[in-house]
Amino acid sequence: MELSEIDKNLIQNSIRDVKDFPKEGVVFKDITTLLNNKEALQTLINHLEDRYKSYDLDYICGIDSRGFIFGSILADRLNVGFVPVRKKGKLPSTTVCEKYELEYGYDEVEIHLDAFPKKNPRVLLIDDLIATGGTAAAAAKLIKNVDANLIEACFILNLTFLNGVKKVKEHTPVYSVLDI
Amino acid sequence: MELSEIDKNLIQNSIRDVKDFPKEGVVFKDITTLLNNKEALQTLINHLEDRYKSYDLDYICGIDSRGFIFGSILADRLNVGFVPVRKKGKLPSTTVCEKYELEYGYDEVEIHLDAFPKKNPRVLLIDDLIATGGTAAAAAKLIKNVDANLIEACFILNLTFLNGVKKVKEHTPVYSVLDI
Repeated sequence: MELSEIDKNLIQNSIRDVKDFPKEGVVFKDITTLLNNKEALQTLINHLEDRYKSYDLDYICGIDSRGFIFGSILADRLNVGFVPVRKKGKLPSTTVCEKYELEYGYDEVEIHLDAFPKKNPRVLLIDDLIATGGTAAAAAKLIKNVDANLIEACFILNLTFLNGVKKVKEHTPVYSVLDI
Repeated sequence: MELSEIDKNLIQNSIRDVKDFPKEGVVFKDITTLLNNKEALQTLINHLEDRYKSYDLDYICGIDSRGFIFGSILADRLNVGFVPVRKKGKLPSTTVCEKYELEYGYDEVEIHLDAFPKKNPRVLLIDDLIATGGTAAAAAKLIKNVDANLIEACFILNLTFLNGVKKVKEHTPVYSVLDI
């Protein structure tokens, strides 16, 4: 079911703009003010649960580290396992690694090789925000590289002017709750 | 209600020991195998919900970043807000900061100055594991420094031989699900 305009506004208004973070000229979307607002948080999670309850998912994958928050709540609501995609060097066992480009240089994300105990699982990838889509596209590749079926990638916020969705759509369908 | 021995074993057996991570000689407690095991995860969260539903909490505070997972699920179950305590430099707005000692050098954690919209809130602090207790004690100080009532600190795993609980008990009562 689609989110009503009232609910959309409730969620959107709970997100704070912080100027010049992490560097001058950038306006940062601060979701901590969504998280500490139980009405906005419940409205968002109810919507995600409603959307994904019929997807027959086996796992939710969240991206380090704000994706852990939405991903783990949704995994609990849907009674499925939660799997973290992490920055390089954080996962202790054998991993698969994927590089992606940053403005200057590159970064890497990892997933455990045995992240999904069930074979050929149905997986949803989730993160708080999609900007240029580099991290999410790398996370999508990782999930497919360990033989999981990536059903969709979900973002709370989509910064449409950066066109990151295009990059992720090469790997999986994309859903975003709020397009800005 | 206390956790039954059967449930305790289910949770404990779902946690994987990884040798020599992050460095030689250390045995790392890998909770990703708890998270991707829905029976173990649900058993744990049901227990936490059962314990804390009568505490009349206003917020759950989770420590960056595995504490985000358990903390946000519990916040959703109890219908309260979630507040992150983060490593230095990750929170965009005005923060309060607390240093703590490491084996060599020190580290810092932060909380937003306006993390708790409600005045004098009742707060639970949660993290996956307590070792020497440095991070958790610093997080406890932060919560009190922004005028919140820290009701308890909760850990899934307590490495008892490192005696970190003693350090945190200077600031708040402590509950640990599994003592190892």
